[in-house]
Amino acid sequence: MTAKMNYDFKDDWLIEQLGFDSRYLGKTEAIMALGNGYMGSRSSEEESYTTEKRDTFVAGTFNQFDENEVTELPNVPDFWKMEMLINGEHLSLEKGEVESYSKTLNLKNGELTRKFIWSYKDIKLELLFSRFVSMARKHYFSSKVEIKNLSKEKVNVQIRSGIDGQMTNSGSQHFTEGEKGLVDGKYMQMMPQTSQSKIDFVLTATHQLKAEHLSERIEMGRRQILMNYFFEIAPNTQAILEKRGSIYTSIDKEVKDSSVKGLRELAVSEMKAVEEKSFSSLLKESEEKWQEIWQKHPIEIHSEDRKDQLAIRFAKYHLHVMTPAHDERMNIGAKGLSGEGYKGHTFWDTEIFMLPYFTFTHPEIAKSLLTYRYLGLDGAHKKAQENGYIGAQYPWEAAWPTDGEVTPVWGAADIITGQATKIWSGFIEQHITSDVAFGVKQYLDVTGDRAFKEEKGYEILLDTAKFWASRLEYNKEKDYYEIKDVIGPDEYKEHIHNNAYTNYTAHWNVNFAIQLAKKLAKSHVELYKKLDEKLDLSTIIPELEKKLPKIFLPTPTKEGIIPQDDTYLEKKILDLTKYKAADGVDSLFHDYNLEQVNEMQITKQADVLLLLLLFEGLFEKELKLKNFEYYEPKTTHDSSLSLSTHAILSADLGKIEESYEFFKKAINIDMGEYMKSSDDGIHAASLGGIWQMVVFGYGGVRMVNGRLRIEPHLPSTWDKLTFGFDYLGESIHVEISKEEMVVTKKENGNNITFWYKNQEITVKNTITILLKEETKQ
Amino acid sequence: MTAKMNYDFKDDWLIEQLGFDSRYLGKTEAIMALGNGYMGSRSSEEESYTTEKRDTFVAGTFNQFDENEVTELPNVPDFWKMEMLINGEHLSLEKGEVESYSKTLNLKNGELTRKFIWSYKDIKLELLFSRFVSMARKHYFSSKVEIKNLSKEKVNVQIRSGIDGQMTNSGSQHFTEGEKGLVDGKYMQMMPQTSQSKIDFVLTATHQLKAEHLSERIEMGRRQILMNYFFEIAPNTQAILEKRGSIYTSIDKEVKDSSVKGLRELAVSEMKAVEEKSFSSLLKESEEKWQEIWQKHPIEIHSEDRKDQLAIRFAKYHLHVMTPAHDERMNIGAKGLSGEGYKGHTFWDTEIFMLPYFTFTHPEIAKSLLTYRYLGLDGAHKKAQENGYIGAQYPWEAAWPTDGEVTPVWGAADIITGQATKIWSGFIEQHITSDVAFGVKQYLDVTGDRAFKEEKGYEILLDTAKFWASRLEYNKEKDYYEIKDVIGPDEYKEHIHNNAYTNYTAHWNVNFAIQLAKKLAKSHVELYKKLDEKLDLSTIIPELEKKLPKIFLPTPTKEGIIPQDDTYLEKKILDLTKYKAADGVDSLFHDYNLEQVNEMQITKQADVLLLLLLFEGLFEKELKLKNFEYYEPKTTHDSSLSLSTHAILSADLGKIEESYEFFKKAINIDMGEYMKSSDDGIHAASLGGIWQMVVFGYGGVRMVNGRLRIEPHLPSTWDKLTFGFDYLGESIHVEISKEEMVVTKKENGNNITFWYKNQEITVKNTITILLKEETKQ
Repeated sequence: MTAKMNYDFKDDWLIEQLGFDSRYLGKTEAIMALGNGYMGSRSSEEESYTTEKRDTFVAGTFNQFDENEVTELPNVPDFWKMEMLINGEHLSLEKGEVESYSKTLNLKNGELTRKFIWSYKDIKLELLFSRFVSMARKHYFSSKVEIKNLSKEKVNVQIRSGIDGQMTNSGSQHFTEGEKGLVDGKYMQMMPQTSQSKIDFVLTATHQLKAEHLSERIEMGRRQILMNYFFEIAPNTQAILEKRGSIYTSIDKEVKDSSVKGLRELAVSEMKAVEEKSFSSLLKESEEKWQEIWQKHPIEIHSEDRKDQLAIRFAKYHLHVMTPAHDERMNIGAKGLSGEGYKGHTFWDTEIFMLPYFTFTHPEIAKSLLTYRYLGLDGAHKKAQENGYIGAQYPWEAAWPTDGEVTPVWGAADIITGQATKIWSGFIEQHITSDVAFGVKQYLDVTGDRAFKEEKGYEILLDTAKFWASRLEYNKEKDYYEIKDVIGPDEYKEHIHNNAYTNYTAHWNVNFAIQLAKKLAKSHVELYKKLDEKLDLSTIIPELEKKLPKIFLPTPTKEGIIPQDDTYLEKKILDLTKYKAADGVDSLFHDYNLEQVNEMQITKQADVLLLLLLFEGLFEKELKLKNFEYYEPKTTHDSSLSLSTHAILSADLGKIEESYEFFKKAINIDMGEYMKSSDDGIHAASLGGIWQMVVFGYGGVRMVNGRLRIEPHLPSTWDKLTFGFDYLGESIHVEISKEEMVVTKKENGNNITFWYKNQEITVKNTITILLKEETKQ
Repeated sequence: MTAKMNYDFKDDWLIEQLGFDSRYLGKTEAIMALGNGYMGSRSSEEESYTTEKRDTFVAGTFNQFDENEVTELPNVPDFWKMEMLINGEHLSLEKGEVESYSKTLNLKNGELTRKFIWSYKDIKLELLFSRFVSMARKHYFSSKVEIKNLSKEKVNVQIRSGIDGQMTNSGSQHFTEGEKGLVDGKYMQMMPQTSQSKIDFVLTATHQLKAEHLSERIEMGRRQILMNYFFEIAPNTQAILEKRGSIYTSIDKEVKDSSVKGLRELAVSEMKAVEEKSFSSLLKESEEKWQEIWQKHPIEIHSEDRKDQLAIRFAKYHLHVMTPAHDERMNIGAKGLSGEGYKGHTFWDTEIFMLPYFTFTHPEIAKSLLTYRYLGLDGAHKKAQENGYIGAQYPWEAAWPTDGEVTPVWGAADIITGQATKIWSGFIEQHITSDVAFGVKQYLDVTGDRAFKEEKGYEILLDTAKFWASRLEYNKEKDYYEIKDVIGPDEYKEHIHNNAYTNYTAHWNVNFAIQLAKKLAKSHVELYKKLDEKLDLSTIIPELEKKLPKIFLPTPTKEGIIPQDDTYLEKKILDLTKYKAADGVDSLFHDYNLEQVNEMQITKQADVLLLLLLFEGLFEKELKLKNFEYYEPKTTHDSSLSLSTHAILSADLGKIEESYEFFKKAINIDMGEYMKSSDDGIHAASLGGIWQMVVFGYGGVRMVNGRLRIEPHLPSTWDKLTFGFDYLGESIHVEISKEEMVVTKKENGNNITFWYKNQEITVKNTITILLKEETKQ
């Protein structure tokens, strides 16, 4: 039996793998990853396989292995592994017979279970593994093994389990070995430190075992502290091993004494505090915290395909598992905390793809994520300076907020020349700066958060515009300001000039900053003064005003196509039909190399189309339609950031069936049948995209020119969609059926207005809109 | 089928493992390790297992991971691994059925082969793997896989093979990732650098493949450069993959341009130079170099048990595989180059256990090993100074010669207190200093090497004595000089006073230095002056002369027992019978902890008895017998340095049957049936011990008070023993049967004299000694 995914449950909270196949461990290690924002861990099997990738990360604990590598989230010593010898034979599902293997993640409470019957020689056992990372106690996790002996004779069992610090990031070791010790004869501790960032970790683990003829022996190997348990299981009886662990670090915000000694004592006293609690009562605590998340703006989808409902839960589950909501010095990695891919770094993925979910449903988390960007201003100044600019040039990849740019400079060697290829994103993929500004602006529009605005938001919006002031290049011949030598969202085009997305978003950023500065100068004199002192607005704003009207904005051709950049439309067109049919990326690059793709009208991901979606107010529907029909066939969707944009835009354009096809593909980026999809980690932006497709795409929610609009369009297979969001401090609930939309606001709050088909609608309590153009209140 | 060792061959050059068991990979990884003194590599299987320990070391390339760890030999990126997918299924012997598995090391030419038939689902394959590290080209190694398809249908094969830098030393990564590249489309290169010692490595690998429907794809992962081959094998046909690799480093002595660029070019040009040579012709070159080793003083043992003959070849094989004879800046590690145990460090094991083999049979290698100690004088001065002494205090553990002491200071945590235990050897196991002097003296006596004597040997002998001058402590009450707070060879006794072995060898060292200085002052005035300037002999020698007569030498009790130290004989005696019966160490330490053992008359390894053996001229036979009978029952032989000493001493004492039992146990330290014996690496000293048991023990060769003695005693099951050695520049051949001993010297050399039963015998050409007390010439 090979492994395959199963999503076909009676309830829509479970994702499951049926059957075991050691070739495909990466799939469920990543898509069933556990975590709570403080830490995240791949769901590797307890027993080891050579094909496994065992990773645990603690958000924000970046470390640089050496000066040739960029900083990354280090792979923390492993707690989950258990070596089991049954009558002296290693338990391994590659040996003997495995029946009824299932591995299940319950999205509702974050519990992972694994179940199977294993027969080998005279041995027959039923095993049930359960584990969770606690949402209630952020430092805490538990694991349980139940072994039932189905053999005719008793079996002798040895379990080796503890803390294993021989883990690396694919060979790079970020930790000192650290002290090891056993406290009170039962709490194993290991105290490694990151080699460059000097973050102390205190790792604690303990076991409880119910078994017969039990003996135990501790074992301290290199970078390991392990307990060996020897016991017997009589036929038809079972043994239960429970393991608990915790992680504390010296950068934990809430800890008072962050010395190693202080952390060790804290860890042991916390472990003792829950000594009497059972696995299930600890799980229940965690489940209650999950309930708070699920009860905040739950989404219900009545679709012919139950997977649609599951997908939005899958997305929300991971958005909370991966997001360090507890500490504004941290942000979301492009693979969350579920893999070594992208090294835990933060990209524009946050502002454009994940942030909207938080802005609309958990504004306090959105604020934390944007505060990270505020704390990152120093890093952004450093980057601007290094590149000969002023203001805040945000790093393409960000780690610790003050680090500045951390994109690796060199990639793998070119297979022909044998020379390392240069990665240009950190230098010239500059739209990130206006993307951050866009995220701030959207947050302010949706929340009206005055404190954040005045303390942080305005400053980011002005400081980013200041960067653009220095970045714009004057073209004397054409008498305009242009932005040359960039990479736009379509990363298949390097060193191009006047990428539409980049120029338009920079223009928006500059324009908004000018209006803002003027408004503040008039009505918030104190604040203006403060910002002027910091940013030299008196010089910068006039300069921006001078430049703004001359910023080159690529205009539509006579066929109505906005050129992606100065030369894109002149390039050769390749019929991508055959590449888009199947796996795409592999086969295109079997026929062409990157240099050749650079010279053709082939787009990796939404570029002009993303611009049309984010700034929809700037463009007419007909122009959008033309551009959609021009660019989509040229887009390979090789980035996981592409499909959701296409799904939403096509829904806007009335292409609802086409949109639903994009939706299906998009939810399958991680949840699909392809078992190698998620080896390096889940696709964080794509999960934000799932929420956007549902709420923005089919729910039709949008901020257009600072105003809320709700114009739903359900796929034909959806009978009903309900969702909610926070808007200007009010909690809004929306129910959409084929016939009507009911918008409800909690009582006694402020009235809220939104736009529906160019009509401004005020909600006091509940309003029902007949989707056949009629409205009743 | 489980794995077991087989030594029962028609010829006595092969060691074999029959049957596969993933629990016992360490055994043959270590005892079948390949190497050539420049590099050494554990013989891990090509396909991976979670229980494997894949190590390759290049002698002398020490690196310190961080300041909390001591320097060690780094585990070099792996070349041997090959991931094989057959019809998409991983080749793994834990799956399906394995028939006729054998893994064989041919000691004669250093070729490792592995053979089996693997059936899984519809697949049935016969696989033959061969590999060797070239003795002729020190940087070079080859590997070959022959896959024969015994299935009914064709099979699709994918092989992933290249250079894998994700290796670590049990989690500690010593290398930068390094540049990677493909030269001329076929030579994969990886250029990692050690992190602290900054040694550049250039690793090169290439493949040749004979197969049908072949396609290939290169893959560059993190710390990996791999080639993927896809091909088919029709039924009853075979495919052959050959892989070649080389390692160069920037500390290679013979290389002119040791820049990375220079090394890369050299590696590729060397690879090209052998392009046309087949696997077997390269193996033949290597075999010829091995022949030179085997032809130098071959040893033949006609024993009832063929394993005795095999054992001496096994020992000599590893002595050459592990010894960096090419570079006097390097020495032998306690586990050779076959495991991470003892970190590649050099101990007294070299001088007392391995060096005699080289001194007597390959004096140029012995000279190189002692030159290492000469180059280590600076490190020894540093250590003396750190401890408040003068002169040369040799490090208990040595790495790069000038590093000084590299013994780790802290060991694993105590399981009760949770505190790390202090390792005292680096501070107080001080006999190493006289051991080094002893090794030098023996080398000089056996070779008469005048150049070495005058340039290096005398200086070591004097400088070590100078250390003892400062180390001796005056006891006013007793009016003698003593040596307090040491560890002797018996490491179960820490912080003891006046260890007999330490005091006697220090006394010898001091005494010899005095005589030497006086002789030089008289007859080598120039040399004396030079040494006086360096070592301040004019002050030191008088001081030594004053102290010598008052150095406390533990004298026999009235029962004739030399006290191991001041308090040993007062301690409680434990009957060790039950612990010595079986595994020993485990069970003793199940009942007692180290602290308790410290308080009993329990000895880990030969201590007083080693003294009686090394300085046999000082003691009467009767006293030796008494001490043997007193100490042996109290000795657990928990160190691999114990059995050979006991075997030789008991042979000397006429206990030949008992001796042969020690011999049997000693050769089984690595070659025995116990499959976990060698996980951390082979026992280098024990291999030197095997040669000593044969030549010193049964051949009866010995240097006593600077004079050669040959007094053989064969075990009753041995009909004949022949061996040879170099003595004062002459090549001596000895044939011993039950009846007679024939000593032959190559013609036209100087006459040689040796002692036999207090008779001085001169050999001009050949002499036959009837072992019934008669001599004829």
